[in-house]
Amino acid sequence: MISSEKPGRREFVETLTKASLLLSVPGMNASGRFRQPAQPVTVGQVMELILKTIPNAPFPKTVDTLKSGSPDQKVTGIVSTMFATMDVIEKAIQLKANFIIVHEPTFYNHLDETDWLAKDAVFQRKHDLLEKNGIAIWRFHDYWHSHRPDGIRMGVVTALGWEKYMDANNPRLITLPAPQSLSQIITHAKTKLGIATMRVVGDLNQSCRRISLMPGASGGRSHILAMSQDKPDLLLCGEISEWETAEYVRDARQQGQKLALGVLGHIMSEAPGMQWLVPWLQPKLPDVTITYIDSKTPFTFM
Amino acid sequence: MISSEKPGRREFVETLTKASLLLSVPGMNASGRFRQPAQPVTVGQVMELILKTIPNAPFPKTVDTLKSGSPDQKVTGIVSTMFATMDVIEKAIQLKANFIIVHEPTFYNHLDETDWLAKDAVFQRKHDLLEKNGIAIWRFHDYWHSHRPDGIRMGVVTALGWEKYMDANNPRLITLPAPQSLSQIITHAKTKLGIATMRVVGDLNQSCRRISLMPGASGGRSHILAMSQDKPDLLLCGEISEWETAEYVRDARQQGQKLALGVLGHIMSEAPGMQWLVPWLQPKLPDVTITYIDSKTPFTFM
Repeated sequence: MISSEKPGRREFVETLTKASLLLSVPGMNASGRFRQPAQPVTVGQVMELILKTIPNAPFPKTVDTLKSGSPDQKVTGIVSTMFATMDVIEKAIQLKANFIIVHEPTFYNHLDETDWLAKDAVFQRKHDLLEKNGIAIWRFHDYWHSHRPDGIRMGVVTALGWEKYMDANNPRLITLPAPQSLSQIITHAKTKLGIATMRVVGDLNQSCRRISLMPGASGGRSHILAMSQDKPDLLLCGEISEWETAEYVRDARQQGQKLALGVLGHIMSEAPGMQWLVPWLQPKLPDVTITYIDSKTPFTFM
Repeated sequence: MISSEKPGRREFVETLTKASLLLSVPGMNASGRFRQPAQPVTVGQVMELILKTIPNAPFPKTVDTLKSGSPDQKVTGIVSTMFATMDVIEKAIQLKANFIIVHEPTFYNHLDETDWLAKDAVFQRKHDLLEKNGIAIWRFHDYWHSHRPDGIRMGVVTALGWEKYMDANNPRLITLPAPQSLSQIITHAKTKLGIATMRVVGDLNQSCRRISLMPGASGGRSHILAMSQDKPDLLLCGEISEWETAEYVRDARQQGQKLALGVLGHIMSEAPGMQWLVPWLQPKLPDVTITYIDSKTPFTFM
């Protein structure tokens, strides 16, 4: 997401207030793990359980609010996914899971503001589907990135098989054991992450060893400062704005630098982090079925 | 560009002040056209000449400021382009043209802020090249879009051969004389605009007749409101954020709507508008050589 967008503080504060009422509910032990609960766990209790693991949570400002449903509702099952698309919601209903944890917005804007969509038929139908089926959606974006290690980063690094190449002091930096051609690295990323086509700036024969890996859409300034600091051969990132990161890399190349850019796609770069959530969360909630649903990319290339 | 970004008012006001000192310079006649000038036209005079054609110009807030050079410098030749890349600057120097009119930023961010880049080697080298060769760069973004008709829109519509299909009351809306498959329209756009690969959301066999054409990066909210208003079969746009426009189209499709999205690429969708500038500006400055340089896309697809 772009850093200039402001989180919905008001909504978050409201959510917190509701959730904090549930702190003393029986069933949660001191370790924050539910064992044979006296009654089904609620959405608010799951949120509370997760927030206990996040440094400095709760945050005064965050986009990680409930987008539908209530903290009080009893959880019948949890779905983890990148986007709560119409299809993902339908699949959750089929699974009888009424709590969807998403990484990205539900209503097409970073703050999930809906006033401007009040008369929009697509929004209305999605909203009605959620209401009718009592589906709670919680965004788990800022908190998951703030977990140590960053859950999204661990998901994509694990999917790429690059855990052992991470720099201990700079987790963004991957140093391959031996140089590979840009083409080889792009092929590897496409295969491991299930990507059909990538946008690339660079010479496909260029040799690369140092990679700045930045899933999601960190923004041009973050990308450029990272390249300036890491001095990578390749920036491998999720999403860019064309007038920022790509133009910087183009200028650097036209100045003779050996620098390349690979655009994985926002969804394809972060979805593995929502898959990585399941084995992380399941032991904390052994009596709740937690399912990862791949929301997939909507794009084809032609 | 995204609408939430704020223009650099301070810089613009400074530019205006300098430019307004030049209003009474000999050589400019009442129609704002230079004929056999007593002395070479200056950068400020060219800007003034152009601003006379833009409704409500000058704007109190705009990103359309001088990014390098001075309003006082004598113009040796003009280059119009999408981006002042290193290569475009080098070509302008070869052409002995010292005034580059661009549509997009020079320094990798919408406001062309440079403080954060002060120690960046890529920025320094580009800045030094401009300084050493006395190259003025003026961004012509907000004003060109505000010209009636929008110069960028006219460029891309003309390149697509769709002038006669534009809606008189809603220039964004194109109604083809007969339905075509999404695949046919994408192929047409790629051929006419020189695009290698496009990202598409939709069924390539879907029949389309109504097209909302939105070059550049208007932002998700603009895209969604336009689709809600125009009820197009296809939104053909320049650049998107994945979590906005693409997810809306995906949800609409999963709800059964016949709606498609074609992403032309920001550069490829707006560059024709900077080519269209040349025949528009040349008659106003018959004694100045004006050259369009295609800054091209930096992307390859793999």
